[in-house]
Amino acid sequence: MIELICIGSEILNGSTLNTNAQFLSNFLFEKGLRVHKTTVVGDDPLSIHSALEEGLKQAQLVIVTGGLGPTKDDITRQVAAKLFDSPCRENPQVREDLQRRFGNIASLEDQCFLPVKARLLQNRIGTAPGLYFQEKGKHLVLLPGVPNQMQAIFTEAFAPYLDTLFSPLDKVHLRHLHLCGLIEDAVDPFLRELQKAHPGAEISICPSYGKVLSIHILGKAREVESIQTQILGEYGTYSFSGGFSGKATLPQALQEVMIDKQLTLGLAESCTGGAMAAYLTAIAGASKYFLGSIVSYSDQLKKRGLHVKSLEEEGAVSEAVVKEMCSSALELMQSDIAIAVSGIAGPDGGSKEKPVGTVWTAIKMRSGAFQTRCLHHKSSDRSTIIASTAMELFGILYRHLQHGVALYE
Amino acid sequence: MIELICIGSEILNGSTLNTNAQFLSNFLFEKGLRVHKTTVVGDDPLSIHSALEEGLKQAQLVIVTGGLGPTKDDITRQVAAKLFDSPCRENPQVREDLQRRFGNIASLEDQCFLPVKARLLQNRIGTAPGLYFQEKGKHLVLLPGVPNQMQAIFTEAFAPYLDTLFSPLDKVHLRHLHLCGLIEDAVDPFLRELQKAHPGAEISICPSYGKVLSIHILGKAREVESIQTQILGEYGTYSFSGGFSGKATLPQALQEVMIDKQLTLGLAESCTGGAMAAYLTAIAGASKYFLGSIVSYSDQLKKRGLHVKSLEEEGAVSEAVVKEMCSSALELMQSDIAIAVSGIAGPDGGSKEKPVGTVWTAIKMRSGAFQTRCLHHKSSDRSTIIASTAMELFGILYRHLQHGVALYE
Repeated sequence: MIELICIGSEILNGSTLNTNAQFLSNFLFEKGLRVHKTTVVGDDPLSIHSALEEGLKQAQLVIVTGGLGPTKDDITRQVAAKLFDSPCRENPQVREDLQRRFGNIASLEDQCFLPVKARLLQNRIGTAPGLYFQEKGKHLVLLPGVPNQMQAIFTEAFAPYLDTLFSPLDKVHLRHLHLCGLIEDAVDPFLRELQKAHPGAEISICPSYGKVLSIHILGKAREVESIQTQILGEYGTYSFSGGFSGKATLPQALQEVMIDKQLTLGLAESCTGGAMAAYLTAIAGASKYFLGSIVSYSDQLKKRGLHVKSLEEEGAVSEAVVKEMCSSALELMQSDIAIAVSGIAGPDGGSKEKPVGTVWTAIKMRSGAFQTRCLHHKSSDRSTIIASTAMELFGILYRHLQHGVALYE
Repeated sequence: MIELICIGSEILNGSTLNTNAQFLSNFLFEKGLRVHKTTVVGDDPLSIHSALEEGLKQAQLVIVTGGLGPTKDDITRQVAAKLFDSPCRENPQVREDLQRRFGNIASLEDQCFLPVKARLLQNRIGTAPGLYFQEKGKHLVLLPGVPNQMQAIFTEAFAPYLDTLFSPLDKVHLRHLHLCGLIEDAVDPFLRELQKAHPGAEISICPSYGKVLSIHILGKAREVESIQTQILGEYGTYSFSGGFSGKATLPQALQEVMIDKQLTLGLAESCTGGAMAAYLTAIAGASKYFLGSIVSYSDQLKKRGLHVKSLEEEGAVSEAVVKEMCSSALELMQSDIAIAVSGIAGPDGGSKEKPVGTVWTAIKMRSGAFQTRCLHHKSSDRSTIIASTAMELFGILYRHLQHGVALYE
């Protein structure tokens, strides 16, 4: 059994979402390991002590996040050291490493004073190393609460131990299939029939923004295999993760096919406000195909940066304007492909003819293809409209390049 | 004491974020009530039973979300009825109400068969009413897991009981203070002294990207008042939430001061890849001051869109290039202020002279002020470098406009 314990008053008072628990649960689940219980407690020693003690009673592996930093409310390390009856001593290697990376910071003394019974898990990003206690078949891992540090330490330094800790018998098989260009209602009847035919497996759908879906299949190896083949047979041209790989995102998949085909992309964004560019450039290596975006949030920049002439006549949210934006972006950046969007993300600015959620889009290929489409998002939530617009366009372009589906079929 | 128990395998396997816990924690916290512990368990009766039993042993009020629906894995109601030794009977009023709203749905029988010892909490959105058990000073509230139903039932039907359950003495006062331009190490010694002087209060720091910090103060009214005055006395010119309001973000604060001073902003982004624009345009109303961003991710666009001439001589990550980018953005968009950034977000592209994390920045005001600075991020994580660059520059501009602090003092 595996338990997570997340320490932090900022989670208990609701000012922070517990994304650490989600990350760890998901990572373990991908490996066929299930978390049995997650507990969140505050920064006080009594709560931490009883949570750790309780967790170690029940579970073979307890993973703790939070409370390893240098400030006064970071006390997880001390509580765990006491539980495992381990003295703390200065670790000269850690001191040297921290001094080399961060200089003589005030928290140096605290951060290299470590329990001798714990194995160190290297933190290449921040100052607090992870700690791994092991005694009488019980395993306790302490990780910092800062998400990127926690993730790096866990995946790089601790995950390799997981295979020795859990035998394959504990494991269930899990496959993910990522689809774009489809809504949940369109696949639901097919999956219900599949589920009936395979009562021993678990098939679930997780819809995301902009017609992106993940299907999770859980069960015995052969059954999972059979189900994935059937889904791919039906929806293969919607798949964007090359079958059943882990956690590919649509921007990653798009980057791969763009680089593979040696194509370049430029954007002209209005209502998405830079979010499309930010999604693409969040992936390392984006500069190999992504040339840039003109985020023309104002009429000024649409005119002066993209030479849009039909603003007054047609209005900013119109087919004529996105066509001009798209052609200008292609021309300005000399890219192989350009995408342009202009819409109403809300909450204000909607009208009866063009309600919030109306987004005009255009895709132009240097090779000649040029298509426009008006998206009508049902949601009136600003962030949903922005994310959905971005993902729907990435999906259309991806399916065109990877599966040969016509643009805006 | 208050405990939350969230039931649902979708949370435990990481496919869903536990936003219910955040909502409830935050709602209670704003009322001066603290959640002491949150537990997440799966849909099996044993786990639910032991979580409820354990929770009721410790806490006066236990709030449970999830497992009230009509499907086979929804069993919370049965487990709770057994714990409170309550028979279940059909409730004709609930049947009538459900039939009126939903017709003769398949789950009707299940959903109007309810434990007689529980008070019903009306669910005006979905089919499952909330349930409120009360016995010997212990209070158990069951809510559905669907967020909008859970929120409506809790705030409308249960929240009124909170005032009778907890006397004002139980309540603590909470204030948030948001600071920018400061790192944790810089304020920690001051806060440690404050904490020593006010042992009855709790002062905690929550650092975020780009020298943004939140300080939470918890305690009795007068003490909280005194602590906030002292912190503002020391760090007033770093504050960006106008004192102690709720949950302001730095882009929101920047938007307010920009609109207040009737100034406009344009960006020229390279390594941040549109993320700065996306942060700003995520806030409704950004178009009132934000004119756009030239996301010149490629040399082509730096030259053709921003007329940068010193690329070959100085390299893309240089003071000369960001100065040109900044001036061109100001000129192109005719904005009052322009910000430009060019750096190495990694993981590749670093060198000995310019390692990953090196970011040249420039801010230019139409009024004349023009400042450049090279940021050296210690982290080599791509997303951290991007977010930190954005927030640090927003902080510098905000402090200049709001508090009159010199640019790059």
